[in-house]
Amino acid sequence: MTRRIPASTIRRLSHYLRSLEDLEREGGETVSSEELATRGQTTAAQVRKDLSHFGSFGKRGLGYRVDELRVRLRQILGVDRVWRVALIGAGRIGSALFEYPAFESRGYECVAIVDSDPSKVGSRWGGLTIQAPDELEALIRHLGVELVILAVPAQAAQEIASRAVQAGVKGILNFAPIRLKVPPSVPVEDVNLVMQLEALSFAITQRGSEA
Amino acid sequence: MTRRIPASTIRRLSHYLRSLEDLEREGGETVSSEELATRGQTTAAQVRKDLSHFGSFGKRGLGYRVDELRVRLRQILGVDRVWRVALIGAGRIGSALFEYPAFESRGYECVAIVDSDPSKVGSRWGGLTIQAPDELEALIRHLGVELVILAVPAQAAQEIASRAVQAGVKGILNFAPIRLKVPPSVPVEDVNLVMQLEALSFAITQRGSEA
Repeated sequence: MTRRIPASTIRRLSHYLRSLEDLEREGGETVSSEELATRGQTTAAQVRKDLSHFGSFGKRGLGYRVDELRVRLRQILGVDRVWRVALIGAGRIGSALFEYPAFESRGYECVAIVDSDPSKVGSRWGGLTIQAPDELEALIRHLGVELVILAVPAQAAQEIASRAVQAGVKGILNFAPIRLKVPPSVPVEDVNLVMQLEALSFAITQRGSEA
Repeated sequence: MTRRIPASTIRRLSHYLRSLEDLEREGGETVSSEELATRGQTTAAQVRKDLSHFGSFGKRGLGYRVDELRVRLRQILGVDRVWRVALIGAGRIGSALFEYPAFESRGYECVAIVDSDPSKVGSRWGGLTIQAPDELEALIRHLGVELVILAVPAQAAQEIASRAVQAGVKGILNFAPIRLKVPPSVPVEDVNLVMQLEALSFAITQRGSEA
């Protein structure tokens, strides 16, 4: 039904959802596209265009009902349910992620932790025991893992990703600085902090050369 | 000179640079746009289009000289120099970032760490002493900090960002889950892992509803 929604639209939908949650806490019942635009640092026309991909919302002159639009956005973003997540890689990044409170409160539940370091396997984080990677396929199948957070070194990432996909994982949040090769049906979100720093230095450098 | 380069182009430039560095290590002297495209999972036409924003490179039928294109891409991305970075927020994410070896090897040198927790102020990380936030402006000015990695809670992020920009910071890598309000001349890169997870659950959910 909804084909080829740009990544920038999806990011804005997440922002609108955050704004609607704030509005609900503040006791708001309706919201205009102008108000959503101001909170999301975009334009009212963009808000209406983004939402129009998914049907018809709101009434001209009355705006959107906060609770209805919030429920609908949660459905659209697929966050009206719990997602079962495996954390692969229990290093520094993995440990920071594991303690990140926003994941669980948003419906991303970590149900397994895997690490290849024998000194880590068997130790407990929260209620979970760190497992060896040879258990990966069994864990994914038995626990119904749908998403993987991949926080392993670059040289291990492709093999682990392929095995996870083979075992039925549906999406990957990838911290390894490589482009994973997975079937097009499996979405991958890359977290590449060096590339984000390079985007900053690019913007600053190009600005300097224009002056 | 180069206006409005899309973010997707800049990300691909980073990928091309990684590929050129790999090729150089492998002893390659020239590379075709087809080869760069394969390594970057894009098309040869896209490679040529991306590079055409920045002048004329390579020779028809001969491809690009690996060393020349690598040097030029480093200039374009602004990574042919060292950037002085302050890490603000010495929590779990901050500590994982501080130990991240890729930052320093890519020319992003952490010269200051700031945290508001009095029990952390004064302790040493590597060669650096964690400073209190009331020193922020002085640190930025005295140390010539150009980039800030902002890893503080959402409610503190805007005030710290505004002070950093006021003191002369040129760009921000933002881990706080809010949209910072800064002058348009200051680029901000947001790292928002919840939004990236939502992009995955969106893609999986929409695919399911199409089937």
